[in-house]
Amino acid sequence: MQSAEMKSCIEACLACYKTCTSMAMNHCLEMGGEHTEPDHFRLMMACAEMCRTSAHFMLIGTPHHKHTCRECAEICAECAKDCERIGDMDECVAACRACAESCQKMAA
Amino acid sequence: MQSAEMKSCIEACLACYKTCTSMAMNHCLEMGGEHTEPDHFRLMMACAEMCRTSAHFMLIGTPHHKHTCRECAEICAECAKDCERIGDMDECVAACRACAESCQKMAA
Amino acid sequence: MQSAEMKSCIEACLACYKTCTSMAMNHCLEMGGEHTEPDHFRLMMACAEMCRTSAHFMLIGTPHHKHTCRECAEICAECAKDCERIGDMDECVAACRACAESCQKMAA
Amino acid sequence: MQSAEMKSCIEACLACYKTCTSMAMNHCLEMGGEHTEPDHFRLMMACAEMCRTSAHFMLIGTPHHKHTCRECAEICAECAKDCERIGDMDECVAACRACAESCQKMAA
Repeated sequence: MQSAEMKSCIEACLACYKTCTSMAMNHCLEMGGEHTEPDHFRLMMACAEMCRTSAHFMLIGTPHHKHTCRECAEICAECAKDCERIGDMDECVAACRACAESCQKMAA
Repeated sequence: MQSAEMKSCIEACLACYKTCTSMAMNHCLEMGGEHTEPDHFRLMMACAEMCRTSAHFMLIGTPHHKHTCRECAEICAECAKDCERIGDMDECVAACRACAESCQKMAA
Repeated sequence: MQSAEMKSCIEACLACYKTCTSMAMNHCLEMGGEHTEPDHFRLMMACAEMCRTSAHFMLIGTPHHKHTCRECAEICAECAKDCERIGDMDECVAACRACAESCQKMAA
Repeated sequence: MQSAEMKSCIEACLACYKTCTSMAMNHCLEMGGEHTEPDHFRLMMACAEMCRTSAHFMLIGTPHHKHTCRECAEICAECAKDCERIGDMDECVAACRACAESCQKMAA
């Protein structure tokens, strides 16, 4: 029901949702310090939620997915940068970058 | 933790989420016909999901709530119009309009 | 479409969802220390998610809401106890207890 | 952070969430008739939501995932049966069965 490009974007969104949720709620909480610094932690949780929502919009088949994908690309790019700044978050950086790139295409 | 205006917007989002979800999954499914016309039904479910997400972003305390509120205002306005067109959906029209207005302010 | 008792339970679930999400992502993250202790923080986020899901099941109108309400009552009761142990979380304790009580009735 | 068995269950839950959401909101809405019969459609949406929640609980790392997985296994089994009854839903039947089996193990 979805194009190959959209299917691939749904996968990228769900992969990023999984990584951000799991890293925040396990790695970050266990490490503490910078990892639970409010702005960083909130960004990770907002990123996870936006990815989940963008995937949902594509699965529903609503044309509004273009707008959620645009916002998702923006949050993911910001989250990738912040995870890189803090360090020891390579898996999250990669998932956020891949999702940002994929959502950027869907938003166009 | 939220301003009075934000608290009021969270309430408007959750009220619209409740109304759209409940109307779609009960009233619309029972009525059938125009009520389960794919574009209309998808719009109602997209509206419900966007309201839920916007409320979540305000509760998280992320500055990205401005973007989700902007998109929420747009979907709610569209959903209000479509529910009005179909008719017999006054509760939904009212909840969508109130949410659109509140989200518009938060997005500014 | 819902009974008065169910409407009241939906409200209790959404109130608890709002309080747990907002307290965890703002108060707890800002305070740190015991407030971001992994088990406590995970419990608050699990409580928020379960409340959101139970409300959703009642809005959908599925008979499975009895099972999600039963689990919601259990998590809320546990979260109330843990918030009381840590202290300075009165709003959360109250919302969790009210939700546990309301869900208990719906699960019966 | 998750065992191989849990990782596999998260995948099964998200695969079932994707299939149920997409089939309901596209295939079922387009087909109409039995496909939008209220009880069937509600079951599909409840199944999608429960799968999403169970995956979330495993990603959060809360021990309550055992309870959400138990309920998820039950809803998925029921949804598989109902999709088989209606017919022309093979992809959904397969995703629900795989998820039910995987969740059953996690709930044990």
